Amino acid sequence: MKLEHIGIAVADVETTRNLFQLVFGAVPYKTEEVLSEGVRTHFYDAGGVKLELLESILPDSAVDRFIKKNGQGLHHLAFSVDDAARDFDRLKELGLRVLGEAPSSGADDKVIFFVHPKDTSGVLMEFCSPKKP
Amino acid sequence: MKLEHIGIAVADVETTRNLFQLVFGAVPYKTEEVLSEGVRTHFYDAGGVKLELLESILPDSAVDRFIKKNGQGLHHLAFSVDDAARDFDRLKELGLRVLGEAPSSGADDKVIFFVHPKDTSGVLMEFCSPKKP
Repeated sequence: MKLEHIGIAVADVETTRNLFQLVFGAVPYKTEEVLSEGVRTHFYDAGGVKLELLESILPDSAVDRFIKKNGQGLHHLAFSVDDAARDFDRLKELGLRVLGEAPSSGADDKVIFFVHPKDTSGVLMEFCSPKKP
Repeated sequence: MKLEHIGIAVADVETTRNLFQLVFGAVPYKTEEVLSEGVRTHFYDAGGVKLELLESILPDSAVDRFIKKNGQGLHHLAFSVDDAARDFDRLKELGLRVLGEAPSSGADDKVIFFVHPKDTSGVLMEFCSPKKP
């Protein structure tokens, strides 16, 4: 079990960035847009694991809908696996509700998929592996 | 910025333990009761960071109330700091709503305190440091 990052949905990214600077003296080492998800991501190094602020850049993106429903805050846990495509099939066979028809392209050059939180104790889980060359 | 663990509030700890075994082949390396918080904690090693399942063992514990309000799922992020007592004072002076009158005794032989999620972009944050001998 290897946690890769924690996704945090934020309504006002500047406020959160200022908070992290004030409290931890920390700044993002990278920002990246993932147009397929309608988000801009802001990555922090939290000592072996990443924190990823998720800022919606499209109305009605998954993050936008999450914030409207739940408010901002903890959004998902992402686990690093050897082969996301293989685990997509394996977890589907185990009866877990994987989201989408196949793994897709995520931030940070990764192949990713999600499992519905109803099947994972209320925690939205992402599984990710490096894109193959 | 050093993430120490992620707290996950669970309604039925056996279901979550079975899920983690099935999906990750993972079992807790430790369980511990924190009577002051009314919880039993189940620790997993997630590769340099810990996942802590929080099982309420007292009616109306903070975790029990959280689950009744939000359902089970991601509960808090805990950050490792050199001296939680010093940061308690520092964050209070910065105007953040620290919870309680002083840091208290947490799981895993630590001194801990929390900051209200309204002041931290919706994320309940714990700050912890080792108990001094």
